[in-house]
Amino acid sequence: MKPIHSLLFLFLFFFISEKAVSQNRALVIQSDFGVKDGAVAAMKGVAYGVSPELKIFDLTHEIPAFNIWEAAYRLNQTAAYWPEGTVFVSIVDPGVGSSRKSIVMRSRSGHYFVTPDNGTLTLVAETLGVTEVREIDEHTNRLKNSNESYTFHGRDVYAYTGARLAAGVISFDEVGKIISGDIVKLPYQKAAVEGTSVKGTVDVLDVQYGNVWSNIPQSMIIEAGIKYDDMINVKILKAGKLVYQGRMIFGRTFSAAKEGQPVAYLNSLLNFSVALNMASFAQRFGISSGPDWTITISK
Amino acid sequence: MKPIHSLLFLFLFFFISEKAVSQNRALVIQSDFGVKDGAVAAMKGVAYGVSPELKIFDLTHEIPAFNIWEAAYRLNQTAAYWPEGTVFVSIVDPGVGSSRKSIVMRSRSGHYFVTPDNGTLTLVAETLGVTEVREIDEHTNRLKNSNESYTFHGRDVYAYTGARLAAGVISFDEVGKIISGDIVKLPYQKAAVEGTSVKGTVDVLDVQYGNVWSNIPQSMIIEAGIKYDDMINVKILKAGKLVYQGRMIFGRTFSAAKEGQPVAYLNSLLNFSVALNMASFAQRFGISSGPDWTITISK
Amino acid sequence: MKPIHSLLFLFLFFFISEKAVSQNRALVIQSDFGVKDGAVAAMKGVAYGVSPELKIFDLTHEIPAFNIWEAAYRLNQTAAYWPEGTVFVSIVDPGVGSSRKSIVMRSRSGHYFVTPDNGTLTLVAETLGVTEVREIDEHTNRLKNSNESYTFHGRDVYAYTGARLAAGVISFDEVGKIISGDIVKLPYQKAAVEGTSVKGTVDVLDVQYGNVWSNIPQSMIIEAGIKYDDMINVKILKAGKLVYQGRMIFGRTFSAAKEGQPVAYLNSLLNFSVALNMASFAQRFGISSGPDWTITISK
Repeated sequence: MKPIHSLLFLFLFFFISEKAVSQNRALVIQSDFGVKDGAVAAMKGVAYGVSPELKIFDLTHEIPAFNIWEAAYRLNQTAAYWPEGTVFVSIVDPGVGSSRKSIVMRSRSGHYFVTPDNGTLTLVAETLGVTEVREIDEHTNRLKNSNESYTFHGRDVYAYTGARLAAGVISFDEVGKIISGDIVKLPYQKAAVEGTSVKGTVDVLDVQYGNVWSNIPQSMIIEAGIKYDDMINVKILKAGKLVYQGRMIFGRTFSAAKEGQPVAYLNSLLNFSVALNMASFAQRFGISSGPDWTITISK
Repeated sequence: MKPIHSLLFLFLFFFISEKAVSQNRALVIQSDFGVKDGAVAAMKGVAYGVSPELKIFDLTHEIPAFNIWEAAYRLNQTAAYWPEGTVFVSIVDPGVGSSRKSIVMRSRSGHYFVTPDNGTLTLVAETLGVTEVREIDEHTNRLKNSNESYTFHGRDVYAYTGARLAAGVISFDEVGKIISGDIVKLPYQKAAVEGTSVKGTVDVLDVQYGNVWSNIPQSMIIEAGIKYDDMINVKILKAGKLVYQGRMIFGRTFSAAKEGQPVAYLNSLLNFSVALNMASFAQRFGISSGPDWTITISK
Repeated sequence: MKPIHSLLFLFLFFFISEKAVSQNRALVIQSDFGVKDGAVAAMKGVAYGVSPELKIFDLTHEIPAFNIWEAAYRLNQTAAYWPEGTVFVSIVDPGVGSSRKSIVMRSRSGHYFVTPDNGTLTLVAETLGVTEVREIDEHTNRLKNSNESYTFHGRDVYAYTGARLAAGVISFDEVGKIISGDIVKLPYQKAAVEGTSVKGTVDVLDVQYGNVWSNIPQSMIIEAGIKYDDMINVKILKAGKLVYQGRMIFGRTFSAAKEGQPVAYLNSLLNFSVALNMASFAQRFGISSGPDWTITISK
């Protein structure tokens, strides 16, 4: 026996293993279905049926019903923490059955997003960049024998296509034709520095704790001359009408303020945020989130 | 070296891989435990201890406490979307500690159901068919050193047995003796056509959206002469007493009706359902579900 | 070809497989984050990025915000049901940003616990024993490029370190230096027999059903001369003040009492507990749990 044969076997072994790994990327599912019924489990059954080796995860299924903005936000909050090649399926679909397209976007970061084209990709498209968008061809990418069901695209088209892409059963090219125009995007107030003050959107609440998160990045805080331990003014408005106005410390952590007192800080996305130490800011002051809610800060 | 040796190695490699795969089927767990405490995690720990290669999934753990009908419904809603060989464990067990049997049912579709024999299998038995039912022999199929615990059969018997069956540690025959008689079934009003009207049960709510789902299949709608875009009359009764009466379009999708207006449609199981476009029908009209709730539709 | 070569290949094959398996232990995550936002998914993305072969599970993410006692309780309720080598990550961290240490404890049972050193390990340290505690060295054990984020240690330090330990990327020694002193422990009333009565803490509620669980073990019930089917007196106090007093059967199961009636029993941890058959004891009598709540039982 020649040593070359031994090497050949080892090569084969690693080649097969490697192929299996490279074709089995994570599938991460998000929806507004909740987990009280069987909808999520049916989607996972379909995905598992595509390949028992798939790694299937939940992003969240508690997106408020029909809230596309929050779906967009949650994708943007998490996608970058998953490896290149991860396939995200997001199903918040108030227009199910209408003429909205079903698409898969590949980001510059190498992530895939399977979703109705309704604004869900507004934020990840900006943050991660877009290399290519394809419309799902439902003639080839739809669970067999599901044609008569008009209302569960999440299971029959999105989970099925996402699973086949993640498992390497189809390539990205086989999803369907390239879309030439732009994807649907939701309008919102972008963060901006105006002299020594900064303006932005309350884009989401940290719901478990009632903290108020904005889309203002650390760099704009620095640009406006605001430093840790400075006292700052914060205004929060709904549709231009003042809802909260107050003065608080810009701390490195919640413990920069006394228990029950307001504190401004950088959240885990390094964006400007407001909290009460050990209590709910959103609940005490009646703050909500979305494109309607703006925030202004100044020294 | 002879080529036959090379082939032998490849054969061995695939044989071992294949064996591992064929013996590791999905384990899908359902309960009324919720996910706020450690009960579900303890069950998964036991299952993982049986085989670290098991693929463990949740159906839902939010079945309303002791609601056997809803447990039956959720199994029926999802089982068919999982591959043959999948093992379902369902623990909604108001009679724990009483004389109810612990069973495993194999359906004609090749799925396994591990559950107390209390009516949980009413619907999957009808939908998927039954090939064999065995009573769990707790002398051989019970977690070691768990004999003194009288109250957590979910972990010590059901999850443990389901995991061993899914992992191929035991065969179906090794579960215990065949049960000769019938399994326990819950009585309910089956769907039926009466001339141009159709009668059935409101068997579940689509809880996240407040949609009302019936057990009336598409075929009976067609038989009664109802077509897409027809206007139809819908009555919903509780224990025979009228709770809702209205006229609405039978649409292909929710968007067949204006926002806030009622629409009849076929849900993801292709059953007749009623919704408000973008709002909760169940909440606005006080509709619930279960064997008590019947629905009548006519042109 | 010599047979020795064949054996070498088989050896290599099993060595590689075995290594992969032995280095991929379960990672079980607990927090007070809830699952409505992307925090848990970001942690899982980081863990999956460490090794796609990791088996990642949830203990629960519904620990009440900042409730260290309940975090301690849930770990204690479940850890023993997971195999040796399982890595638990628990993030209930009211002191984030303060000087509390980040630690990994190895129990005598061979489990690992990654957590802020704030009392979370009070109960597992007692139940499973402690062999060694190490402080996480954040210079080596912190997600790359996460230094500017001051507030999400759960993702950048705890999930990352737990995943690397579970995947075998680092050994326990590589976590950081051994801590010589004791870990932080929460004070509470331990169970004790006083003649024919037994005293203890209501350490948790079985939240889904409203059952009241104590820390009194079966052995003390026996020591006090209480047998199944005995009628017993139960008192529950908050901060020493009587909240409930009643007489009930000590049953093997809930069905020892009529529907709606109180029953004492041994829960799945074999601890003394109180319930209403088919109803919520905690809700009817206003009982909560924690170090403040004590229980006394006697014949």
